[in-house]
Amino acid sequence: MPLWHIYHPVDTYTEQDKQDFAADITEIYTRFGLPAFYVIVQFHEMPGTSVFVGGKPSGDTVRVVVKHLARHLDDAGRRKRMTEHLDGVMRPYTHDRDLHMEFHVEDTPRDQWMIAGLWPPDEGSDAEKAWAQANRAMPY
Amino acid sequence: MPLWHIYHPVDTYTEQDKQDFAADITEIYTRFGLPAFYVIVQFHEMPGTSVFVGGKPSGDTVRVVVKHLARHLDDAGRRKRMTEHLDGVMRPYTHDRDLHMEFHVEDTPRDQWMIAGLWPPDEGSDAEKAWAQANRAMPY
Amino acid sequence: MPLWHIYHPVDTYTEQDKQDFAADITEIYTRFGLPAFYVIVQFHEMPGTSVFVGGKPSGDTVRVVVKHLARHLDDAGRRKRMTEHLDGVMRPYTHDRDLHMEFHVEDTPRDQWMIAGLWPPDEGSDAEKAWAQANRAMPY
Repeated sequence: MPLWHIYHPVDTYTEQDKQDFAADITEIYTRFGLPAFYVIVQFHEMPGTSVFVGGKPSGDTVRVVVKHLARHLDDAGRRKRMTEHLDGVMRPYTHDRDLHMEFHVEDTPRDQWMIAGLWPPDEGSDAEKAWAQANRAMPY
Repeated sequence: MPLWHIYHPVDTYTEQDKQDFAADITEIYTRFGLPAFYVIVQFHEMPGTSVFVGGKPSGDTVRVVVKHLARHLDDAGRRKRMTEHLDGVMRPYTHDRDLHMEFHVEDTPRDQWMIAGLWPPDEGSDAEKAWAQANRAMPY
Repeated sequence: MPLWHIYHPVDTYTEQDKQDFAADITEIYTRFGLPAFYVIVQFHEMPGTSVFVGGKPSGDTVRVVVKHLARHLDDAGRRKRMTEHLDGVMRPYTHDRDLHMEFHVEDTPRDQWMIAGLWPPDEGSDAEKAWAQANRAMPY
């Protein structure tokens, strides 16, 4: 479900950084029982001459776009806490490294979403738990 | 209208594959009378060290993001059938090649969308038919 | 707030073109009092073999995806005028250069959006004015 696009400057993250960053992101969702393989993180390396912040070229900006599919929060307080939690998870890879960082989370429709040719099981269903345990999509 | 982002591993698709894939996608929409040039397909080659599924680097994952602009479905059954149809069209380029594949479809607002400096004609209008026939945008 | 993805052919824009284009985009928003640093423009260079329009490879297409976060328009007339205004700003970099261009604007949720670890201030608030004047995020 969640799809994370991380647009970052060239040479900002080592391969180990990316692995750590992706693992920390994944844990946000597996803690809530989502299958780990739902979490896809894509790192997009951006040349400093191709990113502009306020009209100026920027070589130290990380822009993150998160798409949530499996779970959408309605309650304002929970949305706020979730967003702040994501910010906290990203902190070691952004603010703490003096990188400028902006992100937002989009909620995209659950009913126009498929994985490996299958419909993801209902939220909290036995099938979803089975997918989480096996860490793969399978007929149910 | 439809904008397809296909994020795929390096060396997954030949130029011919991409042409075939894009042609199959285009046909989904021209069958319903949409102008062919409405269909834009972008292939984004992703290094295996920049894509993580479940926190692990993945060199065999295709992630597709589809944006629908000209037509939005409201009916749950039609949304389901449309989504399964898209999955079927992608099958030869993904599941059948043992690539892991996930996709979703977003509906984006029709009234904040322009092509070649013009407003796309109303759904099913004569002007839309003329654009489809000429396969280009023109004043109407 | 606004995030602009500009997908363009290889060698379409010089570094100066990109600076000018990004500056013109930024001005759209600073005129309305938004902080300049809210405006992030990302240029994504696309090989001609990776972009298909109507099923045909295209080396002269610019596809722009705009995401609005800080301000959303509800009124149909204002949405129309805003969209046409964006088209006009892009004209010198697209239509006037005989490039095919399509774009759309998405409205994404304001309450799942953070900058530099902070919540962007309310629309029109004193804090937003202070951010605009200082051109940076700061506690308020």
